[in-house]
Amino acid sequence: MMSTMLVELDAIERAAGRIEGRVRGTPLLDNDRLSQELAARVLVKAENLQLTGSFKVRGALNAVLSWRELGRLPAGVAAFSAGNHAAAVAYAASEVGLPAVVCMPPSAVPAKVEAVRRYGGEVIFTKDLVGTCKAVCAERGYELLHPFDDPAIIAGQGTVGLEILASCPDPDLVVVGVGGGGLISGVAAAIKAVSPGTRVVGAEPATANAMSYALRQGRAEPLPSPPVTIADGLSAPFASERTLAHVKEHVDEVVEVTEQDIEAAWRDLIDATKLVVEPAGAVGLAALRAHASLRPAAEGATVVLLLSGGNADLARLAGSTPT
Amino acid sequence: MMSTMLVELDAIERAAGRIEGRVRGTPLLDNDRLSQELAARVLVKAENLQLTGSFKVRGALNAVLSWRELGRLPAGVAAFSAGNHAAAVAYAASEVGLPAVVCMPPSAVPAKVEAVRRYGGEVIFTKDLVGTCKAVCAERGYELLHPFDDPAIIAGQGTVGLEILASCPDPDLVVVGVGGGGLISGVAAAIKAVSPGTRVVGAEPATANAMSYALRQGRAEPLPSPPVTIADGLSAPFASERTLAHVKEHVDEVVEVTEQDIEAAWRDLIDATKLVVEPAGAVGLAALRAHASLRPAAEGATVVLLLSGGNADLARLAGSTPT
Repeated sequence: MMSTMLVELDAIERAAGRIEGRVRGTPLLDNDRLSQELAARVLVKAENLQLTGSFKVRGALNAVLSWRELGRLPAGVAAFSAGNHAAAVAYAASEVGLPAVVCMPPSAVPAKVEAVRRYGGEVIFTKDLVGTCKAVCAERGYELLHPFDDPAIIAGQGTVGLEILASCPDPDLVVVGVGGGGLISGVAAAIKAVSPGTRVVGAEPATANAMSYALRQGRAEPLPSPPVTIADGLSAPFASERTLAHVKEHVDEVVEVTEQDIEAAWRDLIDATKLVVEPAGAVGLAALRAHASLRPAAEGATVVLLLSGGNADLARLAGSTPT
Repeated sequence: MMSTMLVELDAIERAAGRIEGRVRGTPLLDNDRLSQELAARVLVKAENLQLTGSFKVRGALNAVLSWRELGRLPAGVAAFSAGNHAAAVAYAASEVGLPAVVCMPPSAVPAKVEAVRRYGGEVIFTKDLVGTCKAVCAERGYELLHPFDDPAIIAGQGTVGLEILASCPDPDLVVVGVGGGGLISGVAAAIKAVSPGTRVVGAEPATANAMSYALRQGRAEPLPSPPVTIADGLSAPFASERTLAHVKEHVDEVVEVTEQDIEAAWRDLIDATKLVVEPAGAVGLAALRAHASLRPAAEGATVVLLLSGGNADLARLAGSTPT
């Protein structure tokens, strides 16, 4: 049963064709400061420069375009998200002329609420994200677009992996942040299919470690307590059987990093890359620093850090001593 | 006499060949948010991603490589700068194996001092920047590398112009920040030679308006009072006859912008581009907003904003209400 869940390369390639011209091909940038620090050739994949400010738009767009291709467009799209999936769904829906509703917690950051509205999405504030979202779908005939537990979402996110390989054919290591696991599922599937010698490592906050927890439990159980992390983009309370299956099949290792290490890596990453990256984009650097054993031993080895998004609270950068 | 001062296209092309592979070709990125706001296709040239964090490395490297080509390498390189030229000179000198001394004011930002040392440069703190620098040159046989009044520096900075045109062959408008005028001199010379129909506009802080002042005076006189601006990268106290000549010959207009407009543009630019840009890189956006008459009338016209550098004081971003 597990294997039928897995998204294959051809689905990711079809996704790439579908979303081409509607998302940005983001640059893969050599970074001298990080290369020096980590004694490797370090490249960063700048998905912070993606439309809507994160990779999430790839999966959302692939899903709605797939529906249209199949002649199965619903009356609208609904989603629950406090973050990047919210803006991505609003954008994707507007691309196919559908209305979108996003259920957000009352505590959602104003900039993220604003992003949904900028792309024409309707925001419903609610504490019962999933229940409200399902009610909207039932009432209005909308389709719920899950943030990660969906093959079309995983295939869309996997296009980041293909793009990395198009610029850098066989990196030694690719490090990807893990929340619910949609991004790493797609990226690892793409990379292992095309460049099986490349190691793919996941990094997640120790205080929001749904995937590590699922790996230890042997199945995708919700975390015993709600995740709390500075890397808000990774605070999924559970992985899914689908993403767990991808990780088991394709990912070499998932490591956990502390909040302190994420925050330090976040500041240093912004300083070294001159890119506005959100904390979720910095867990990979935090992982490489904390787990030197992850790094390829060979001199001149190539390491890719996937900078997943750029929707950062800049005011927070000044919150403690700048590095 | 004026015309012999002008750097020509062939010198800029030679500079491009000389520095190729030693500097980054920086991306020219479409920006949907700014395009929507300004009702044009707006692209940003991300020189904040350049080595050392600004375009300055192009000119400095071209100068020292020219010396080497001519078999005229001095014992070392000296410069005075509180900012991006400092790190650029240290980096360029190290590329040809020369020692570098940079004279910096005691008030220099620690991060900029640190950048010089990272590239192996020696820092001398002094209030008499020019005098100390000349004394070092006399004592040690070093060559002084002026931040803008040097044909090799201007030719090196001009390579940004060639790169813009390589990605976008005939933009309607290119907006460039102006300090001492080295960048706009080179960029305008390159662009007008290759794409004469492109308008090149300079933007400078009203409180650091050395070029506008020189244009009004008819010659490159020092400003009557010292420049004070948030756009510290543009706070040259004078233009030079050489840069003034380039501006007169090639630049369509130089406009001034207020501190308030620069600060607002700076925050919005970072938010819209997800790039860490220093305030000097935001004067172009401030100018387009304040002077709508600058913008091409045609729908779909193409506007390039040159984001000159990324060495920003991030703590300052949180200094007032985020936009």
